[in-house]
Amino acid sequence: MTGFWVQDVELSPPSLKDNTADADRLVQALKSRLGGDAVAVELEVLRQLPEVLRSADYHVRCVLYDDQGRRGISAVVPADDSRAILGLAVDLGTTRVVIRLLDMTDGKALGETSFDNPQIAIGPDILTRIHYADTPEGFEHLNRVITNELSNHAEALCVSVGRSASDIYMAAVAGNTAMTHLFLKLNPRWIIREPYIPVVNRIGMFQAGTLGIRFHPSARVFVFPNIGSYFGGDLIAGILYAGLHRREETSILVDVGTNAEVVLGNKDWMIACAGAAGPALEGGAARMGMMAGPGVIDRVTIHPETLQWEIHTIENLPPVGICGSGLIDLAAQLFMHGMLDVRGKLAPDRCAERIRTKDGLQHLVVVNCRISGTGEELTISQADIDSLIRSKAAMYTILETLTASVGITLRELTRFYVAGTFGAFINPVSAITIGMIPDLKLECYQTIGNSSLEGAARLIQDSQCIAEIDHIRDSITYMELNVNQEFMNRFSAAKFLPHTEPALFPSVRPYRTS
Amino acid sequence: MTGFWVQDVELSPPSLKDNTADADRLVQALKSRLGGDAVAVELEVLRQLPEVLRSADYHVRCVLYDDQGRRGISAVVPADDSRAILGLAVDLGTTRVVIRLLDMTDGKALGETSFDNPQIAIGPDILTRIHYADTPEGFEHLNRVITNELSNHAEALCVSVGRSASDIYMAAVAGNTAMTHLFLKLNPRWIIREPYIPVVNRIGMFQAGTLGIRFHPSARVFVFPNIGSYFGGDLIAGILYAGLHRREETSILVDVGTNAEVVLGNKDWMIACAGAAGPALEGGAARMGMMAGPGVIDRVTIHPETLQWEIHTIENLPPVGICGSGLIDLAAQLFMHGMLDVRGKLAPDRCAERIRTKDGLQHLVVVNCRISGTGEELTISQADIDSLIRSKAAMYTILETLTASVGITLRELTRFYVAGTFGAFINPVSAITIGMIPDLKLECYQTIGNSSLEGAARLIQDSQCIAEIDHIRDSITYMELNVNQEFMNRFSAAKFLPHTEPALFPSVRPYRTS
Repeated sequence: MTGFWVQDVELSPPSLKDNTADADRLVQALKSRLGGDAVAVELEVLRQLPEVLRSADYHVRCVLYDDQGRRGISAVVPADDSRAILGLAVDLGTTRVVIRLLDMTDGKALGETSFDNPQIAIGPDILTRIHYADTPEGFEHLNRVITNELSNHAEALCVSVGRSASDIYMAAVAGNTAMTHLFLKLNPRWIIREPYIPVVNRIGMFQAGTLGIRFHPSARVFVFPNIGSYFGGDLIAGILYAGLHRREETSILVDVGTNAEVVLGNKDWMIACAGAAGPALEGGAARMGMMAGPGVIDRVTIHPETLQWEIHTIENLPPVGICGSGLIDLAAQLFMHGMLDVRGKLAPDRCAERIRTKDGLQHLVVVNCRISGTGEELTISQADIDSLIRSKAAMYTILETLTASVGITLRELTRFYVAGTFGAFINPVSAITIGMIPDLKLECYQTIGNSSLEGAARLIQDSQCIAEIDHIRDSITYMELNVNQEFMNRFSAAKFLPHTEPALFPSVRPYRTS
Repeated sequence: MTGFWVQDVELSPPSLKDNTADADRLVQALKSRLGGDAVAVELEVLRQLPEVLRSADYHVRCVLYDDQGRRGISAVVPADDSRAILGLAVDLGTTRVVIRLLDMTDGKALGETSFDNPQIAIGPDILTRIHYADTPEGFEHLNRVITNELSNHAEALCVSVGRSASDIYMAAVAGNTAMTHLFLKLNPRWIIREPYIPVVNRIGMFQAGTLGIRFHPSARVFVFPNIGSYFGGDLIAGILYAGLHRREETSILVDVGTNAEVVLGNKDWMIACAGAAGPALEGGAARMGMMAGPGVIDRVTIHPETLQWEIHTIENLPPVGICGSGLIDLAAQLFMHGMLDVRGKLAPDRCAERIRTKDGLQHLVVVNCRISGTGEELTISQADIDSLIRSKAAMYTILETLTASVGITLRELTRFYVAGTFGAFINPVSAITIGMIPDLKLECYQTIGNSSLEGAARLIQDSQCIAEIDHIRDSITYMELNVNQEFMNRFSAAKFLPHTEPALFPSVRPYRTS
């Protein structure tokens, strides 16, 4: 047994003939049920134990954990206590935090909610926050807002299903390395400075109380391990959920979030790298357009003959901007209809009256001012498209570099997992069309949504997963992306649409000027 | 390795080629130095680790502990840090608390101090305190005064030798079961109620911070285990110091403090019992006279021929009362000179003008009003003597019952350890004369003073002792003293001076009326 679990146990009551102490009696009973040796009893449990045992007539329910081979009891309640033993799965995103409440006894999900990471007020990106953490006050503040908001939202979620956060006895938290550091109040300073060293990779469990989280004070909070500064616990949770580490065949997992992180492997080995590792990716995938939200364009279709544009917005509201998946769709459509050439440049002759020149830069009108939600024309500039091209080229280059490093080609992959909320909205046909992802059969692509949250929830439901997490962590080789000549050659080749070598993308047949 | 220790270790600095996280790097280095598996790193250590490693150029000193097989790092400082790594041994007495400060790196004692247990203000005896702990406020208060006073005196002791309590990284605390419970804020309610169940026997270590003790916040506090409600960690510490558990021969250890606790055994087995277990002892040894202090009579000699009394007081001040050891001396002298008969009754003919009758009860004048420090006659009553007789009879009966239970006689013992501050002052000849302890050769008796403190200090100096403590705890059989007919017969026989069977005390040759 490893991880968290709930165990009912009935003790023989003490007598003059058997006056073993309360805690020792409980530990003895657990040892004979579970085997193994020592079981530590938390101070808070000791403090409540005499009353709980006597009020429960020595029939109790224990919440147990195993932290790197050390078993402990974090709570004891009467066996007939009607309160739930709750677990909380946390996806600690840079932008958005998603939490799911589960019943530990049957593993059922009771509810889910999400909230903006309150650290956004300090800075939308990790880098700004890490610099802000340079002063003790800033550091303290960053930590306090996230632990506080998590506590508040967990409480609200519990209340919404008729429970209390003090019934949360365990939590599993998956976040990137920087978020994990800020959450644990570990100095993130060296993460972003050469040679990019986190404070800790293998994290383990902490008591909620010591973290300033308002669950049951003895609750255990498991924090997913990192592999390095640019490969965090959210990815480990994603691998756990996707199951790369259990499959015979080699598959790939791409998390397209704030950064692009990629893992390639199977049950025997895994190799990983992250997009932020190379300067070519700075201002990459994350900066395309605006965040998804009401009125944001997420799908674009251009009619092959009429060249009529069909614009879809979130919640079907008048369009106010375009998000990443919309931009990929748009670029793919423009390219398919010859409005974007193989170098990613707007073709004025094909774009006709949609072209504007502002400040010496070509712009394409996506939505005119009559139907725009802002009352003004919505345009994208050649610079926006160039940025997208760099991002998609970087993504493809990373995928190619990673697979090449183990001697296989992208076309050989049979399973391509796309994780992350952004990834969930990308139309794979469009992404293939612009050469962002390889030209695999569509059934190879599997979007797995918020795999970080799912991995954390998996751990709450089945604590055996901790062993799997250890296995994943130990199996992964983290590859630093060296931006060397080979990488740059690949990158340059990938900056074409879909690629300088069209043979790599046989399914992509764009409009050709005759 | 088990317990506490200090380990210097030099790490290879991180590089782009080896970007292992700080904590993982440290753990790896410690594992290769110490062998074994996991080493947990405290959250507080993680929080300081990046700066410590970098400021120390990766050459650090770690304070480690092993708590029931779980190894952890409670502190990391630069290897060339001039501050000491301090340890504190604590004898947590019901009446008096004694602390000794040690340097962990060489085991040397740096200083020692003692202070009244502040819980005395609530009640001098354990029973009153346990009843006071029935209300949450009372319980809270009892815990707070002791943890607070301990912190204050530890700080003062540290300051007196040019250190700070924040340099205390480990402490070993030995106290009786009730004191241990109040110290850890564990409900002592069931200790005094049938069937007398402590919250916990095998205690282990806690973080100083969680106990409200102001040492280094990550300091580990080891609390000696109990055997039962009436046999506490102070006794285990005493056994550790005396070394009963290491000797081939069977020896006996008697701790005459607030209660009388006795352990008999050798390296293979130990059997123990405590005086408070039987009602015959209530109002026993502890209530003889007053506590030792300036002006208190601690030795009495009566000249064999002149019958002149020679009274010795502590600090040679005018006498104000008599303490336990003085009372035993006095009773022995009275008996030797025929002023007390074999039944322990004052012999008016031999006492002559020292006899007074007050409220129908005979009193003996010990000090007349001219030399008394109070200006009044100091007397002891027949009731005081009766009480002493009951106490000494109870003590002898316990010793006899314990040895008889394993089939040996008291005369067979070759080593008789007397622990406790009270025990240290008892004149063994007098104690033998009144039949309180067996008539062994004087060289068999060894007073070992505050063996509880010494045991705790031993642990700080050599953490291997934790294994010995486990061994002691596991070897001891605690015998409940059943006040049955056999016990009462023994007790009745022991109520004579020195005993109904004078053959048991061949060395005692009292005055006999011809």
